[in-house]
Amino acid sequence: MHVRAFVAEMEQLAPPALAEEFDAGRIGLVVEGRTKIRTVCCALDATPSVVKRAVAARAGMLLVHHTPLWAPVTSLTGPTASLMRDVLAAGLNVYVMHTNFDHAACGVNDALAELLGLENTEPLSLGLVGDCTLTVKEIARRLACPLRVWGKVPGIGRLGIAGGSGFDLSLLEEAKGKGAEAFLSAELKHAVYRSAPLPCIEATHYALEAPAMKRLATQRGWRYIDDPPVLTPVP
Amino acid sequence: MHVRAFVAEMEQLAPPALAEEFDAGRIGLVVEGRTKIRTVCCALDATPSVVKRAVAARAGMLLVHHTPLWAPVTSLTGPTASLMRDVLAAGLNVYVMHTNFDHAACGVNDALAELLGLENTEPLSLGLVGDCTLTVKEIARRLACPLRVWGKVPGIGRLGIAGGSGFDLSLLEEAKGKGAEAFLSAELKHAVYRSAPLPCIEATHYALEAPAMKRLATQRGWRYIDDPPVLTPVP
Amino acid sequence: MHVRAFVAEMEQLAPPALAEEFDAGRIGLVVEGRTKIRTVCCALDATPSVVKRAVAARAGMLLVHHTPLWAPVTSLTGPTASLMRDVLAAGLNVYVMHTNFDHAACGVNDALAELLGLENTEPLSLGLVGDCTLTVKEIARRLACPLRVWGKVPGIGRLGIAGGSGFDLSLLEEAKGKGAEAFLSAELKHAVYRSAPLPCIEATHYALEAPAMKRLATQRGWRYIDDPPVLTPVP
Amino acid sequence: MHVRAFVAEMEQLAPPALAEEFDAGRIGLVVEGRTKIRTVCCALDATPSVVKRAVAARAGMLLVHHTPLWAPVTSLTGPTASLMRDVLAAGLNVYVMHTNFDHAACGVNDALAELLGLENTEPLSLGLVGDCTLTVKEIARRLACPLRVWGKVPGIGRLGIAGGSGFDLSLLEEAKGKGAEAFLSAELKHAVYRSAPLPCIEATHYALEAPAMKRLATQRGWRYIDDPPVLTPVP
Amino acid sequence: MHVRAFVAEMEQLAPPALAEEFDAGRIGLVVEGRTKIRTVCCALDATPSVVKRAVAARAGMLLVHHTPLWAPVTSLTGPTASLMRDVLAAGLNVYVMHTNFDHAACGVNDALAELLGLENTEPLSLGLVGDCTLTVKEIARRLACPLRVWGKVPGIGRLGIAGGSGFDLSLLEEAKGKGAEAFLSAELKHAVYRSAPLPCIEATHYALEAPAMKRLATQRGWRYIDDPPVLTPVP
Amino acid sequence: MHVRAFVAEMEQLAPPALAEEFDAGRIGLVVEGRTKIRTVCCALDATPSVVKRAVAARAGMLLVHHTPLWAPVTSLTGPTASLMRDVLAAGLNVYVMHTNFDHAACGVNDALAELLGLENTEPLSLGLVGDCTLTVKEIARRLACPLRVWGKVPGIGRLGIAGGSGFDLSLLEEAKGKGAEAFLSAELKHAVYRSAPLPCIEATHYALEAPAMKRLATQRGWRYIDDPPVLTPVP
Repeated sequence: MHVRAFVAEMEQLAPPALAEEFDAGRIGLVVEGRTKIRTVCCALDATPSVVKRAVAARAGMLLVHHTPLWAPVTSLTGPTASLMRDVLAAGLNVYVMHTNFDHAACGVNDALAELLGLENTEPLSLGLVGDCTLTVKEIARRLACPLRVWGKVPGIGRLGIAGGSGFDLSLLEEAKGKGAEAFLSAELKHAVYRSAPLPCIEATHYALEAPAMKRLATQRGWRYIDDPPVLTPVP
Repeated sequence: MHVRAFVAEMEQLAPPALAEEFDAGRIGLVVEGRTKIRTVCCALDATPSVVKRAVAARAGMLLVHHTPLWAPVTSLTGPTASLMRDVLAAGLNVYVMHTNFDHAACGVNDALAELLGLENTEPLSLGLVGDCTLTVKEIARRLACPLRVWGKVPGIGRLGIAGGSGFDLSLLEEAKGKGAEAFLSAELKHAVYRSAPLPCIEATHYALEAPAMKRLATQRGWRYIDDPPVLTPVP
Repeated sequence: MHVRAFVAEMEQLAPPALAEEFDAGRIGLVVEGRTKIRTVCCALDATPSVVKRAVAARAGMLLVHHTPLWAPVTSLTGPTASLMRDVLAAGLNVYVMHTNFDHAACGVNDALAELLGLENTEPLSLGLVGDCTLTVKEIARRLACPLRVWGKVPGIGRLGIAGGSGFDLSLLEEAKGKGAEAFLSAELKHAVYRSAPLPCIEATHYALEAPAMKRLATQRGWRYIDDPPVLTPVP
Repeated sequence: MHVRAFVAEMEQLAPPALAEEFDAGRIGLVVEGRTKIRTVCCALDATPSVVKRAVAARAGMLLVHHTPLWAPVTSLTGPTASLMRDVLAAGLNVYVMHTNFDHAACGVNDALAELLGLENTEPLSLGLVGDCTLTVKEIARRLACPLRVWGKVPGIGRLGIAGGSGFDLSLLEEAKGKGAEAFLSAELKHAVYRSAPLPCIEATHYALEAPAMKRLATQRGWRYIDDPPVLTPVP
Repeated sequence: MHVRAFVAEMEQLAPPALAEEFDAGRIGLVVEGRTKIRTVCCALDATPSVVKRAVAARAGMLLVHHTPLWAPVTSLTGPTASLMRDVLAAGLNVYVMHTNFDHAACGVNDALAELLGLENTEPLSLGLVGDCTLTVKEIARRLACPLRVWGKVPGIGRLGIAGGSGFDLSLLEEAKGKGAEAFLSAELKHAVYRSAPLPCIEATHYALEAPAMKRLATQRGWRYIDDPPVLTPVP
Repeated sequence: MHVRAFVAEMEQLAPPALAEEFDAGRIGLVVEGRTKIRTVCCALDATPSVVKRAVAARAGMLLVHHTPLWAPVTSLTGPTASLMRDVLAAGLNVYVMHTNFDHAACGVNDALAELLGLENTEPLSLGLVGDCTLTVKEIARRLACPLRVWGKVPGIGRLGIAGGSGFDLSLLEEAKGKGAEAFLSAELKHAVYRSAPLPCIEATHYALEAPAMKRLATQRGWRYIDDPPVLTPVP
């Protein structure tokens, strides 16, 4: 498959026009490798370990959610130089779908809702709300991730979710306005908790966003390369 | 005691000149009440509950770490109006020590180091590093806070700490350069974890900053009003 | 009457969308008090004296033209703290109509034109022009305000007016283009006078804007609280 | 006299370094004419009438307080083209001393203080305060300018003054701190009056600044060209 | 002819709306002289020599491509004062057509294409491409200007052109996309050459833009005042 | 040799603190390769041809004047990806000395002055002036570069020079003030020529800056890789 054909397919799946403005220049084909692709790998982040496994699998394309070149660079040194050497020397292409995939119909939040079995879903400006029959423990189990619950969650009923770093006060208000009784996301700040109109269920960024990449890999017959954070709750 | 005398004392303890630039206009006497103070209360945040308890205690002064008026306002409505009504109607003064207290000799990180029994401490640009004989479990016990440990912590030995939201890559590098084998702070972001040169021990913002306020209240004979987040780890 | 009903009525009278951009966040309900309103007071400015009289009148709402919180604040101290204490402790709401009322059909300039008996009026980008049969002395009498006349005014005939601080060169040119032979406003600057294409009649800001607030109070059966500047011409 | 010698003399009188930043490029020799000067004229503004009288007097130099080219231009059209034609065709130089003259020891406020007979003067960040034995009527007479007095002035005693547009809240506070019981300047805004800590005596910009130019002309044997605003108080 | 009639004619020829944003305030009537025009002169730049010749020709209007007042001024000194004295004292108007003339149908690039006999032309975002039967030597002869050829030009065939300083990478790419085999413009930078997708033929700014002014003068019966740079190639 | 030792040596030769602000992040080790260096190559630009020759020479370090990553990137595609693949795959380091080398005592302008045999040199804010006994033809011969001479150069005598793109009006004035009768640099713009106080001798950017890199290579025993522009004057 030609790399241009792959790009065209992905642009249909998650149109670049859906991305937030801050993603300008940070999505799409961010590293250009060889033009013919046979094997596609997929991961959440292009970590050194993920890249090495993709190269070992002789992949021509690595599809990720987070770009390996976020801050604009005028030099390639340290870990960035190592990573780019591995990628470029192998002729590996790196393609990024970020906030365009968050907002896509088949994207991050849709996969998360499916994993949690949410029903009667309604979209939010980011994420969605839906009826949830799981307990917090069952959510933790499905996400394969320890949770921190902020505030009292007597029973969930209707749940707001936003993959990634979605604890934003205006988003919480919007979710509450649509009946949410709790909100699931990652990276809660103290100041947001203090003003939050809903109890907050905090997972990890990885646990919320990986399901969409895994599901996509399964659908397309690609290889998903798992590289979750090493996380231990104490106690 | 005249409010001006109280302000002068606090400015000696945590000189405003130590504050970060973003704190301009957000520290010191942020709400002006009556001029004579008999009772001083102290807390981390001026939450509605804290203010009500301070008013019930007939306090003339409430000393806090986080200002109740962070974003500049041109109106007083909703929760801000309620809070300011309680404060102003009672003639309560609100005094804020924020990053000036973080950087002060006797401040946030010093109290935290004392609580954890750190020795041979060296200052960082924010926070400090010191020798630590505690296990992660014992740290959790002393902080009275569940922890999330990111990465492998075989044994701590030398620990970097930064009260509040201190997981910053350049700070982690600085701590590593001074021998730290792990770093304790709050509000770790996924992207920082991915590049972190040290294992990260994530507590809550409250657990790390409250000790300094408590210690100060004890030293001065004030009343500390505790209002920790309601947090439950699952599983 | 519920405060929300009052707000809805006022938004019909002077739609927020008519306001200049610099008024963003500075019009509408700028201080939130009790939700049920029986008595409404009205004034040009929320001065300490006006607020005390409104509180004494047991008003639930004070409608003003100029917001008491123009510059964004991160603290409440000095005269602002005193004023806000009086307002909040009494549960008084403060509602502001500023440039939206200047531009409204029934607003500041319309009331001024009525007071001066202008006919055949045409709107300007701010204010209006109309035929005027008064002498300058009679204008001073109707406005109850001493005037300063800059330049020679042989006879007025057609007059441009702009409530508030409206001596702007492009506005004067616009008025001249619509036949104005003199322009009435407040706060004339030396540099504007030097280039002015029309004689300028300078009243006070208060004298030009109060009529609209008084007329509105009369129409609605509210109490207008007068608080004009103490001004003495010499000689 | 060579124009460079004249410039050197004036730079000693009112050093450019004393000027406010906003005067950058707007003081000094702003129009360059012939290099040999015999006759110097002096005025507050380079109005068309002033320029015509200077040209008629065969002046080689016109010294003014306010530059005729305030806003930067990329064209010379309308009144600016006419004025510059008169100036350039006659080989007239135009030299401007603005805020450097306001701040100079012998400058605008010093001349004003002398005219009003102020004693025991103390400098402000702009203007000065001094003991004043005049009544408001006598001030009006000396300035040859009708006044507007805002607030009650029982007796002056100690007076703050600032030539030009000097009613600034922080300046009024500074003057009050140095014992002022009233403040004399020009172009008072309504919002400043509402918060002013002192009664305000409002003259015209011209009446406050012309005395320094007149005095300078007298001292140097130049011709002062008077062009006051045409101002009639009503009633 | 009234100057307003002349302006109206020119605005039809090269509508101001076609100009680039950076030309705001720098095109049209930039110096206003007498209102009745009999003689029109035309040149590329309003150099001192051009102005003197226009004045000697008793011209009422000088039409140029480059404004004599590019950088905004708050003073008229040195060469600018001399030039403006000559212009204003003679009552000469100066009218500028810059990027509006570059983009106009009958403008800079159209005249250049005609001079070079280009056929089958297609417009670019700036300039155009067309079939060219000339050799590089013949181009030099027609432009009356020595050239510098960067890269190898085996035979031109299809040529991109842009009057003025048009060596811009995205423009070169656009030209290449439309079949260009070389690009003719002025002021090539080293960094652009290094990435240029086409050989670059570098003429002078004057040689590329003067033809349009000359042609216009001929068409209208005006006098063209030639003032080319003094340029000698070595060796 | 360790790459750190090489960097230390170069920082002594051309201290980074001498660089212009716009070079921040664009000088020093901009691509990090292997840590042990045996062979050093040197060139003006890291063109594809230069890189291929450096790799073929098994160089560990390529020292250049112009960085290959000027504009900050968030992706590596097209020619940048190809170039970086060649560089990184070969473990080649790229080190840049730009404006720090322009300003260094032994730098770009010093080498140029030596090549032209200038005497009695005096530094400028950029470049220098010196006595020159060459004719323009001889300058062209020494630089191995055709020249364009703008204006009349009767005899040079004292010459100002600035390697790279140095035709700046204030620099020309400075040079003239130090006795220069002509100025040698590259990339002259039409508008600068029109106001230039000196005749301008225009070489190529490459011809002016390469001598310093060549001299440095010779002094250190490195290989200089020549890659001049392909330039043909017509006629």
